Amino acid sequence: MAQKIFFTPGPAQLYPTFEQHLAVAVREQLGSISHRSKQFRSLYQHADEQLRALLDVPASHAILFTGSATEVWERAIQNGAGRETFHLVNGSFSKRFYEFSAELGRTAHRVEAPFGEGFDVDQLDIPPSVELVCLTHNETSAGVSLPSAQIHALKARYPEALFVVDMVSSAPYPALDYGLVDSAFFSVQKGFGLPAGLGVWIVNEKFLAKAEALKAAGGYIGTHHSLPSLWKNAKNFETPATPNVLGIYLLGQVAADLNRVGAAAIRRQTQERAVQLYKAIAASEGLEVFVRTPDHRSATVLVAGTRGSAPALIEKWKGQNLVVGSGYGSYKEKQIRIANFPANTDEEIAQLLTAIGQA
Amino acid sequence: MAQKIFFTPGPAQLYPTFEQHLAVAVREQLGSISHRSKQFRSLYQHADEQLRALLDVPASHAILFTGSATEVWERAIQNGAGRETFHLVNGSFSKRFYEFSAELGRTAHRVEAPFGEGFDVDQLDIPPSVELVCLTHNETSAGVSLPSAQIHALKARYPEALFVVDMVSSAPYPALDYGLVDSAFFSVQKGFGLPAGLGVWIVNEKFLAKAEALKAAGGYIGTHHSLPSLWKNAKNFETPATPNVLGIYLLGQVAADLNRVGAAAIRRQTQERAVQLYKAIAASEGLEVFVRTPDHRSATVLVAGTRGSAPALIEKWKGQNLVVGSGYGSYKEKQIRIANFPANTDEEIAQLLTAIGQA
Repeated sequence: MAQKIFFTPGPAQLYPTFEQHLAVAVREQLGSISHRSKQFRSLYQHADEQLRALLDVPASHAILFTGSATEVWERAIQNGAGRETFHLVNGSFSKRFYEFSAELGRTAHRVEAPFGEGFDVDQLDIPPSVELVCLTHNETSAGVSLPSAQIHALKARYPEALFVVDMVSSAPYPALDYGLVDSAFFSVQKGFGLPAGLGVWIVNEKFLAKAEALKAAGGYIGTHHSLPSLWKNAKNFETPATPNVLGIYLLGQVAADLNRVGAAAIRRQTQERAVQLYKAIAASEGLEVFVRTPDHRSATVLVAGTRGSAPALIEKWKGQNLVVGSGYGSYKEKQIRIANFPANTDEEIAQLLTAIGQA
Repeated sequence: MAQKIFFTPGPAQLYPTFEQHLAVAVREQLGSISHRSKQFRSLYQHADEQLRALLDVPASHAILFTGSATEVWERAIQNGAGRETFHLVNGSFSKRFYEFSAELGRTAHRVEAPFGEGFDVDQLDIPPSVELVCLTHNETSAGVSLPSAQIHALKARYPEALFVVDMVSSAPYPALDYGLVDSAFFSVQKGFGLPAGLGVWIVNEKFLAKAEALKAAGGYIGTHHSLPSLWKNAKNFETPATPNVLGIYLLGQVAADLNRVGAAAIRRQTQERAVQLYKAIAASEGLEVFVRTPDHRSATVLVAGTRGSAPALIEKWKGQNLVVGSGYGSYKEKQIRIANFPANTDEEIAQLLTAIGQA
């Protein structure tokens, strides 16, 4: 059977080197090694170093592993806010992040934009009582991005609050300034082109101090995956519980591959491909670009409205072994979502552009 | 390089069919499929059905997936007790389970036995205010087991309380009666011979009702991994967040392999090998059986005291490509731990028996 090419927003196309790294992992019996061994610690250290280089993460920030990025929503709020959080909500995922805060008993403020629209951060007013500002760099359901520059500008106006950035469906694309961003996180089954089952949480010392203060005041900040517990273990390149060892190994290897290409080159390629894809969608008879404001259009998850039935188009493309994502929730019938992640080759993008041209 | 044979208590030797299942997963591109697809749901359903058959889990219980068994410690207490838990503690892991309850703000009762000793459940007195009784079928640090019959006898005396059984380092060995056991859990990197990164939580309707009551009373029971959230998704063979898809697939396949052997045959084999291994340890000049009471000796994680240096013996055996576990914590210098999991072949056990005879 012919192999499918995935342009889905995650799980997504696997990075071209995935199979070769997996073969090494099997040969070296990494599925059996102890998570308290030197071999595991150097494997964690390698992933840490490669991610630091790729994303420009300074020593003030730790790189921690969880079960998923969804878990980081919970852990970040538990450890970063005792009472109040602030959220920008413009789709299903930023909304769930917001809802987690209320489920955790916090007062969650939100500013909402309609599905498909972004924010003008200059107009935002964040109450001084807010401890944690939760931003979504890329709203996966709507294909709307909050540009890094906007995130940095907002933080500059509110230096006291902790800022956490969900970059689940955009990392490693956003060039975040970790001098301003206290925390950011992603999962590996999107822009890193790996199988699901691992969340990555980047978080700084100020965030850790907040978690420790919350705990000292009698707050509940989690057990094995409290920030102090994760942090303490990470200083020794270990984890509080047995982690997805294979996932951490593969992430380190793919991050190293991405570093060989270079972060700047990957970002440039992502931008160039996004321009081509949006242009093709706009020119296509059967498709239209969903997000109106060009500055808010995501470079990594592109949403297109379909003139005809979206499921029919998805089926047609599947026949050509091109797999794109369906529209989210109630947009299933009239939208498709196209991921633009580094795992896809130029040739695959060319095939997709041809299909878009014929839609 | 010669392949190592692992007799470590987890991560452990991979099941002999692991590579072949992994090759299928890669060929079928399971790392890229959507966790909201029919393909994923049938993969979850297959794992569910195979685990049900293997462990004799009735329809009253759901089979749920978490990031790790450690996470289940947290989720089980969050969802099963608003105020009070009761723990049998006789080693590092049952102690951590106990500590989680206090970290979660519960009143945690404990009955403690010295390291290497078990319990006489007839003598136990559980306060009527206890909502959740937390038992460890196999204390991995000390090689001490709490036999299933004892667990069942204790529950028969306290039918009102919820019972949860940690069988992390013994599943699929314990033949638990799920008419009595409300919940049990394990991780896949031990007796199932798979890479780490997945916890399995078996839990019944009574436990779910408790979680819902706690939530209704304003308690915090978790966000995406609250029991009601996991349960609702599992009814549709889905998960609240993107799970370790590959891990669930591999677990279903290995459970099917184990079913082909048969649960009874696996248990018999585990018992027979344990008898042989304990006999060899007792007869060896350099080793002695650590757990004094035969009824308390674990069949799946065997602890042996060493007359000489334990690290030296471990190194010597590594030279023969036989990898056993070190003694836990302060027992590192004077003990080794030997896992007896279904993944090892008769030939591998024979090699280990020879090495033990020469120790």
